[in-house]
Amino acid sequence: MTDVRVVGVGMTRFGKFPDLSPRQMVAEVVDAALADARMEAERIEAVYVSNVFAASLTGQESVRGQVWLDGTPLAGVPVFNVENACASGSSAVALGRTAVVAGEAENVLVLGVEKMTHPEKGRALRAMEGAMDQERLPRLRRSLGLEEGQGSPFMQVYAEYARAYMERSGATQEDFARAASKNHAHGALNPRAQFRDRLSVEEVLAARPVTGPLTVPMCAPIGDGAAAAVLTGSPATEAMSRSVRLLSSVVGSGVRGRPELVVAETARRAFERAGIEPGDIDVLEVHDAASPAEFIVLEELGLAGPGEAPAMIRAGDTTIGGRVPVNPSGGLVSKGHPLGATGLAQIFELVEQLRGEAGARQVEGARIAVAENAGGYLGPEPAAAAVTVLAR
Amino acid sequence: MTDVRVVGVGMTRFGKFPDLSPRQMVAEVVDAALADARMEAERIEAVYVSNVFAASLTGQESVRGQVWLDGTPLAGVPVFNVENACASGSSAVALGRTAVVAGEAENVLVLGVEKMTHPEKGRALRAMEGAMDQERLPRLRRSLGLEEGQGSPFMQVYAEYARAYMERSGATQEDFARAASKNHAHGALNPRAQFRDRLSVEEVLAARPVTGPLTVPMCAPIGDGAAAAVLTGSPATEAMSRSVRLLSSVVGSGVRGRPELVVAETARRAFERAGIEPGDIDVLEVHDAASPAEFIVLEELGLAGPGEAPAMIRAGDTTIGGRVPVNPSGGLVSKGHPLGATGLAQIFELVEQLRGEAGARQVEGARIAVAENAGGYLGPEPAAAAVTVLAR
Repeated sequence: MTDVRVVGVGMTRFGKFPDLSPRQMVAEVVDAALADARMEAERIEAVYVSNVFAASLTGQESVRGQVWLDGTPLAGVPVFNVENACASGSSAVALGRTAVVAGEAENVLVLGVEKMTHPEKGRALRAMEGAMDQERLPRLRRSLGLEEGQGSPFMQVYAEYARAYMERSGATQEDFARAASKNHAHGALNPRAQFRDRLSVEEVLAARPVTGPLTVPMCAPIGDGAAAAVLTGSPATEAMSRSVRLLSSVVGSGVRGRPELVVAETARRAFERAGIEPGDIDVLEVHDAASPAEFIVLEELGLAGPGEAPAMIRAGDTTIGGRVPVNPSGGLVSKGHPLGATGLAQIFELVEQLRGEAGARQVEGARIAVAENAGGYLGPEPAAAAVTVLAR
Repeated sequence: MTDVRVVGVGMTRFGKFPDLSPRQMVAEVVDAALADARMEAERIEAVYVSNVFAASLTGQESVRGQVWLDGTPLAGVPVFNVENACASGSSAVALGRTAVVAGEAENVLVLGVEKMTHPEKGRALRAMEGAMDQERLPRLRRSLGLEEGQGSPFMQVYAEYARAYMERSGATQEDFARAASKNHAHGALNPRAQFRDRLSVEEVLAARPVTGPLTVPMCAPIGDGAAAAVLTGSPATEAMSRSVRLLSSVVGSGVRGRPELVVAETARRAFERAGIEPGDIDVLEVHDAASPAEFIVLEELGLAGPGEAPAMIRAGDTTIGGRVPVNPSGGLVSKGHPLGATGLAQIFELVEQLRGEAGARQVEGARIAVAENAGGYLGPEPAAAAVTVLAR
C-alpha cells in the first residue's frame, strides 16, 4: 500500500472579507501550500476542489475549481469539483488520497474555499437550506417551529441534538459554555482564527441567545476563507522530512436505516484502516458547528464513554496541555467555518501540530491526530461524515 | 493493477418529464443497474453522483446524492457529489474507477441525473451560464454579441467553434447537417432517445436557425434523465460473463496556457493507459452538444486527420454499419443531454454495444469502445474533458 503523506499546507485567515473573491483566496493558499511543500506546480497531477455555496451565492456552478485556478500556476491541471456540505473538504481529501493510493497521481493538491459574506444580509443563512432535503424542508421547518425565510434551520437542528444529549447525559448549558470558552481560548492563540478574544464561561452564557441552549459564541459564524494541502505518494519529495502520514481518510453518509451510527461507524472504519485505537489519539479537531456537537462527537469517536464527555471537558482533559486536546485551532466556533474550507483547515491545524510548528497552540509530543468533519442534514442525522487520521 | 469492470448499467428514457423528480429518476436507474449487475445493494460500498444544476434550478445543493438515494436500497452508502459541468458523469466514473483500483471499494455505483425542465421557461438555459466564468461573463457576452438574460451563450460558443473549423477544414453547413441527420437516424433506433424521428439532411438545413451555421436539430435539447453503472474489482461477480472492462477513464481540464489541447491530450492519456491506438476503436460516443463538435473531436481523437472528418462522415464511415460508427445512441442531439446524466448515458450505450445487446443499433463485433465527454467553458476551450476506454 502506498504511503500517502501531506507534504505542504496553506491557509488564509478565516473571517469576513467582503472584498476578497474566491479566486484571490484560492491563489493565496495554492501558493502557500506549494511553497510549504517545496514543490513545483508542474508536479501536481490533479486538484480536488471543495466548495459548497458558490452556485447559490454567486451563480458560479460546476467548474468552480477550473475558474478559480485559472491564472494560478495550477491552470491546466485536471480538476474534480467535490461536494458534501460541511464535510466537502474532507471528502476532497479522501478522493485525493485515493488517487495517490491507486497510483493514478504521484502528487495532488486538495483545496477548499468558501465565500459566505454577501452584500444581501442573511443570504448565506438561507443558502444553508440547500444542504437539507428540499422536498422535506417545509415539514422540517414546521417540526422545528420555523417560519419560511427565517434563515438556516441548522442551529435549530443542533439545539435539538443538544437537548437530546442533555437528557441522556445530564450535561448542562454551562458544560456547553465551558467547551465554547475553551475553544475561544484556543482560538485566541491562532493567528488564522476569525475570533481571537478569550471569553469566560460566564461571558458565553450571558451572550445573545440563538436557540435552545445555544448562545452566539457556541455557534460557528458566517465567514470566508480557504485552505489547501499537497498530498504525495513519492518518497523523494524534498519536504519529506517535515511531512505527515495520511493514514486514512474515510467518508460516510447518514441516511435513514442506520442514521444514528454515521459518525461512530465512519470513525471506526477510519481507525481500523489506520491501525489505531481511540486511546492512541494525541490531538483532535472536531466539527463543533455548535458546541454541544463536541461532546456528542467525543463519545461517538470512543474518546469518552456515554455521558462522560462533560466530565472530561470539565477536568481540562480537552484543553491544550490536557490529556487529549480538542480543537486547539479554536474549532469552528472560534476559528470560523467557511464551509468548503473547514475540512482542509482541520488538516492544516493537525499538520502544524504534528510537525511541532503550532507555536503557542502546540500540543507537546503529538504523534497521532484525528479530524472529524460532518455536514448536511437529512433528518435526524448528518448527511455526510468524514474522519481523517494523520501521524508523524 | 486491478481489472475494473462495468457489471451493470441502467438508464431512463431521456426527454422532457415535468412530473418526474430527480429522486424518481435516481430510484429507477439504481434499481435497473443493480438488477443488471445481479448485485445486492449491500455490496455497493460507495456511490459517486454527478449532477450540475440542482442548486441553480431547485435549491438542492451539496448533499444531492444523499437526498436522492434516501429511500432507495443504497440509503446509508457513502456518497461523493461530483461536478465538472457536462463532463460531470465521466468525472464520477473516473473517481469510482480509482476507488476500485485503490482497493478502497470492491463495488461502487456511479450515477448521473439531471432535471432541466423547469416551470419557468428559459431557466435551464440561463443556469448554463453557471458553467462559465462569472467574472468574465459580461465580456464573453459582448464578444459573442449577446444581451444579458438572452439565455445560454453555449450555442454561440459552439457556433464560434464551427466557424473556425469551417475556415480551417473547408467543412460546410451541409456537412454538419449530415452528421445531425446521421445521429437522428441512429436515435430513431434507440428506445431511450429524446427524439426518435429521422430527419433528412435537407430537413436539418431547413429547420429553425439557432445561431451561425447551427439549426435546431444540430443542437442538444433541454431534457431530463438519469443513468447509472455498477463498477467492480471483484472477479467473483455473478454478472461477470456479461461484464465489460473499464480500461481507462481520464479527466483533463482546459484552462489558459494550453487550452487548445485539452481534448486531444486527455484522449492521448486515456489511450495510453488503456494500451490502445485510435485505429483500434470499433465504436465511439462523442459529445456533440452541437453537431460541429463531432467533426472537431474525431480529429482531436486521431480518428481523422486535420480537415478529414467531413469526408469520413460523408463516406458513411461513422454511420452504424460503417467503419467506425459514431454516436450509435443518437448522440446528444438526438438521444438528449440532461447534463449530469450524459457521461453515464454514453457508458450505458457502449456497454450495450460491447455486450452485443444494442438491438437495431448494434455495431457488429464491437470490441473496443471510447466515450468522449466535455464540459464548461473558460474561453476559448472546454473547462473539462473526459475520455473513457471500454473493452469486451
